[in-house]
Amino acid sequence: MPPAAPILLTPGPLTTSARTRQAMMLDWGSWDDSFNQLTASLCEQLLAIINAANTHHCVPIQGSGTFAVEAAIGTLVPRNGHVLVLINGAYGKRLAKICKVIGRRFSTFETAENQPTTAADVDRLLNADPRISHVALIHCETSTGILNPLSDIAAVIAQHGKRLIIDAMSSFGALPVDAQHVPFDALIAASGKCLEGVPGLGFVFARKESLANAQGNCHSLAMDLQDQYAYMSKTGQWRFTPPTHVVAALHEALLQYKEEGGLPARHKRYANNCQTLLNGMARLGLRSFLPEAIQAPIIVTFHAPKDPRYQFKTFYERVKAKGFILYPGKLTQVETFRVGCIGQVNTIDMHAAVKAIADVLREMEVLDI
Amino acid sequence: MPPAAPILLTPGPLTTSARTRQAMMLDWGSWDDSFNQLTASLCEQLLAIINAANTHHCVPIQGSGTFAVEAAIGTLVPRNGHVLVLINGAYGKRLAKICKVIGRRFSTFETAENQPTTAADVDRLLNADPRISHVALIHCETSTGILNPLSDIAAVIAQHGKRLIIDAMSSFGALPVDAQHVPFDALIAASGKCLEGVPGLGFVFARKESLANAQGNCHSLAMDLQDQYAYMSKTGQWRFTPPTHVVAALHEALLQYKEEGGLPARHKRYANNCQTLLNGMARLGLRSFLPEAIQAPIIVTFHAPKDPRYQFKTFYERVKAKGFILYPGKLTQVETFRVGCIGQVNTIDMHAAVKAIADVLREMEVLDI
Ligand SMILES: Cc1ncc(COP(=O)(O)O)c(C=O)c1O
Ligand SMILES: Cc1ncc(COP(=O)(O)O)c(C=O)c1O
Repeated sequence: MPPAAPILLTPGPLTTSARTRQAMMLDWGSWDDSFNQLTASLCEQLLAIINAANTHHCVPIQGSGTFAVEAAIGTLVPRNGHVLVLINGAYGKRLAKICKVIGRRFSTFETAENQPTTAADVDRLLNADPRISHVALIHCETSTGILNPLSDIAAVIAQHGKRLIIDAMSSFGALPVDAQHVPFDALIAASGKCLEGVPGLGFVFARKESLANAQGNCHSLAMDLQDQYAYMSKTGQWRFTPPTHVVAALHEALLQYKEEGGLPARHKRYANNCQTLLNGMARLGLRSFLPEAIQAPIIVTFHAPKDPRYQFKTFYERVKAKGFILYPGKLTQVETFRVGCIGQVNTIDMHAAVKAIADVLREMEVLDI
Repeated sequence: MPPAAPILLTPGPLTTSARTRQAMMLDWGSWDDSFNQLTASLCEQLLAIINAANTHHCVPIQGSGTFAVEAAIGTLVPRNGHVLVLINGAYGKRLAKICKVIGRRFSTFETAENQPTTAADVDRLLNADPRISHVALIHCETSTGILNPLSDIAAVIAQHGKRLIIDAMSSFGALPVDAQHVPFDALIAASGKCLEGVPGLGFVFARKESLANAQGNCHSLAMDLQDQYAYMSKTGQWRFTPPTHVVAALHEALLQYKEEGGLPARHKRYANNCQTLLNGMARLGLRSFLPEAIQAPIIVTFHAPKDPRYQFKTFYERVKAKGFILYPGKLTQVETFRVGCIGQVNTIDMHAAVKAIADVLREMEVLDI
């Protein structure tokens, strides 16, 4: 590994530990008992993180996070269901696009990118349209870093007797969710985010009865979570070739997660990263797009400097040369860039990243921040 | 890596080189230019293997091989198309299942598991049913190791003006195909087979015009190859998070593929492995299921010994303890087991595997072979 490999301050793929990557140095037979044990242990550990073992199954699925989201909607929303999609960013829009492409009826409710959906909104929307069977929500909308009030929204949906599908891709493992207090039919996450594995698989926590009733729902063979789960629980194996090295890396990452102190410790490290970043950037005059109250400690969106000498591409390349990979903004109206707080990084790295950013702005003679 | 890691004699995941695995020790930013270059170089090298650069695009897709097969059918067969599926094993059956689940009209033609489909069969079937728009064929049917006569079948399909979809999962990179002589709309393969990468992505060589005309065909967002290609050709990036480490490993595996001497050398090594295996097993009295003329040098199916003291599970565990992972049979009627010839293995390994099998049979007192 080149000594100068840059640190990824991106929302996944992110910087993993050498120990996690080292777990990929072994080739596993996907039919072999030892690999089945790895898969079983993985699912058990994942369920424990959100206290879901009694109520939900963990169904892993090959592919990126979006594959897992599409699999969850396709499998758990019956063909005559109707999904209310709550949107305040690009990933919410993607939920709606999935419903459209796979042919599930849906309606959308969109708020501004700096405005969380509220439980009151959802209450009103559910009162207004009894056709709605499912609500789909992004927990932390990674396109800005905004946190939506999951618990309150989940409670309202349960009161209405409706079902909740949560895209918790960028929050799972870092922000607390207790499946015994937050009712949901599906919560979706992936290997290469806050668990600090490498990308290549997603997983869906699916309510046991909902999954049992989902036979024949899915529009896809490969993404049918009911079929995937049925086969896995019968044989211990994946239906189709698993990304064995990605599975092994995630298993190793979970051991380190536990050693670090589980969710509270992971949350605290990321919160410290985030605070260090916000403070440091504020000292440089760089303003964060979201108020702190709705900022998740996952990724921060910053307004781009106003100075005409600022250009994202040059800025990005120069910060990279100093050892840090940043992320472009994803807002249509405002020019921004993003800095991730997640991955195998700590406050020392965040201080160093802020210093690199300061140095680059000075070198570029960007004065009007 | 434990020194005693067993050698995988399985049709993928398989044994990779240490150099290929070592390529996974680096974390790549999926938005970064250097990663885009890796992807572009990957596609270019893959196209060259089948001389397809002028006529086809290479579209990589996250997930296992089955995801790529479903993506190809879903994207390239129009919603009003009709697929003739040629079946002589489990993977052919899976093609039919995919058509069924995703709602493409299809008919099937099934031969025995030791009987290749012929060009004459296909000619007759196409004459009999003008509704057929596409034919789907498994090149090497991995459930036995049987080779179907691809060139002849492709020629007949072209004469009829119909379109061919080839599942070349277990043959790509080892058995020659020239896209300028074998007409096809899609040829499908994956990272973790004869290219000796790790599992986690598939790719589809899609005829340029067919892909261009495929907008709106696909039943899935994540598996829409037209959308995937359009985005990638515009931005250089994957639409959704790529399995960065799997991509890097495949890229490194392709460099070694070239160094070894490309397809002819890879083919020769596997053919030698296969011949060494067949000879060695014959000396033990173990009979191969297929006649040599239709045996692909990929994986060999052997009849299980008749002796009641033979039990696959014990046999498997004991051979594994001696350093080799075998594969169970996949035939419903006949008891068999399978031994792969592919992966980072050579004739020395095959000799050693035969010796391990001989020793285990002796220890188990399996006399009636
Ligand atoms: C909230 C959210 N949903 C979905 C996704 C999509 O995941 P992927 O890019 O792995 O398909 C992401 C990726 O960052 C995300 O942050
Ligand atoms: C011919 C063939 N088709 C399809 C597949 C399915 O691939 P996967 O298990 O990666 O989904 C395989 C896997 O071995 C195969 O050999």
